[in-house]
Amino acid sequence: MKKNYLINQIQHKKSFLCVGLDTDITKIPKHLLGHSDPMFEFNKIIIDTTKDFCVSYKINTAFYESMGLKGWETMEKTLHYIPNTHFKIADAKRGDIGNTSKQYAKTFFETLPFDAITINPYMGEDSVRPFLEYENKWSIVLGLTSNLGANDIQKLNVDNTPLYKNVIKNISNWGNEDNLMFVVGATKANELKEIREIIPNNFILVPGIGVQGGNLEEVCNYGLNKDYGLLLNISRDIIYSSDKEDFSEKSLDRILWYKSQIEKYFS
Amino acid sequence: MKKNYLINQIQHKKSFLCVGLDTDITKIPKHLLGHSDPMFEFNKIIIDTTKDFCVSYKINTAFYESMGLKGWETMEKTLHYIPNTHFKIADAKRGDIGNTSKQYAKTFFETLPFDAITINPYMGEDSVRPFLEYENKWSIVLGLTSNLGANDIQKLNVDNTPLYKNVIKNISNWGNEDNLMFVVGATKANELKEIREIIPNNFILVPGIGVQGGNLEEVCNYGLNKDYGLLLNISRDIIYSSDKEDFSEKSLDRILWYKSQIEKYFS
Repeated sequence: MKKNYLINQIQHKKSFLCVGLDTDITKIPKHLLGHSDPMFEFNKIIIDTTKDFCVSYKINTAFYESMGLKGWETMEKTLHYIPNTHFKIADAKRGDIGNTSKQYAKTFFETLPFDAITINPYMGEDSVRPFLEYENKWSIVLGLTSNLGANDIQKLNVDNTPLYKNVIKNISNWGNEDNLMFVVGATKANELKEIREIIPNNFILVPGIGVQGGNLEEVCNYGLNKDYGLLLNISRDIIYSSDKEDFSEKSLDRILWYKSQIEKYFS
Repeated sequence: MKKNYLINQIQHKKSFLCVGLDTDITKIPKHLLGHSDPMFEFNKIIIDTTKDFCVSYKINTAFYESMGLKGWETMEKTLHYIPNTHFKIADAKRGDIGNTSKQYAKTFFETLPFDAITINPYMGEDSVRPFLEYENKWSIVLGLTSNLGANDIQKLNVDNTPLYKNVIKNISNWGNEDNLMFVVGATKANELKEIREIIPNNFILVPGIGVQGGNLEEVCNYGLNKDYGLLLNISRDIIYSSDKEDFSEKSLDRILWYKSQIEKYFS
């Protein structure tokens, strides 16, 4: 997907929400378990319910891989069910030596036609490069993650600057604003302000709103740029709003609430 | 697999070699392409050929994922074909927030019964912890990788020490020598000497011998410990010794050559 198309979708829908399909077979409503593919059935209903109010879906590959072959099939079917108007993210946190990253790029950009994949940059430039070589595909590189463990390595002190700032600055030179985004956790809103100064023009994918406790208003205030420049991901707080037959309505309520919270940023 | 069992295998076979199954459909001998599952056919022959001379197999998940559903099935079949006497590594470089890492641990320790998985530690302790909670399973965390890109982040200067040393030291406290190994690239033999001082007792998985150019003798001199403590991985240089019908004999020649190079370390 081209950047302009994504920006147009955001403008048109007045939404920069992304729905995270972290679909856990143990958490979906019990009445779906009779279906031949309960996870896909659940995803279909969630997508039908939310698609008018979000511009992106993020498939968390771990939840599908953990189901083995069957889960991989569900991931494939879900990906093809998402409308092409939506920006499709593989939240896969991949990255390896060039020769191997090339295979991961093939996996998520060819075999599975995602628009974007999340990438762990720890192995350096040659581990990210193969992903950047695809036209109209996006690398979403970990900048500063939403979890407590972000303090362990990402915040180590490199020449009086936290590591993640060095990392974001370096990586911003590996690609450009048409093929490179960053992950910055919503639980790190204060840091987001300074990160936005380092990368004024790149899109930022922000997980950590909802169950993880990130502050939506701070994220918008610090993160929005001239292109909007934000994809706000919410997973559990939307998709697990209810474990009963009313889960579709409850999910609708939740996404509409989130949408109402960001309406003021569209004039 | 318990550590003692692995050490016994090494002693018994006089080998700490690991064969990397980076099986690429475009590189395997053409005469296999008529089989219903050419990658599995290739892997079976490589395993039959090499199993008496190595103690471990490392499946590089990227090469299987890139083939989609069919590839996932090949990975599963290959894993089950590897004898239980061999230490089975998923080279998957996973790692995410705790909730998601738990799903990856389930994938590679339950759904696919590997003994070990490689892990990218960039997201910190809570991203590694779920893997460490499985008994007799191993987390093999990236220490210093074999690629050029290792210089970009892993060697940044943290309080006058390269980042990777900080990382290895911290991580060594998250687990113990019965559930935690490290990846150190063979192309970094000089650094291996200092890394061995930080983690005298942990096993180290060493990729980068062969095509990547690591020096086998230096790796052994600097890396071996009282338990041997090394798994020396060779992938392309063994499995792609020939692209003709004689590939099995040529692979045998290569692994026997490697085995001859390490024989002197067994007295």
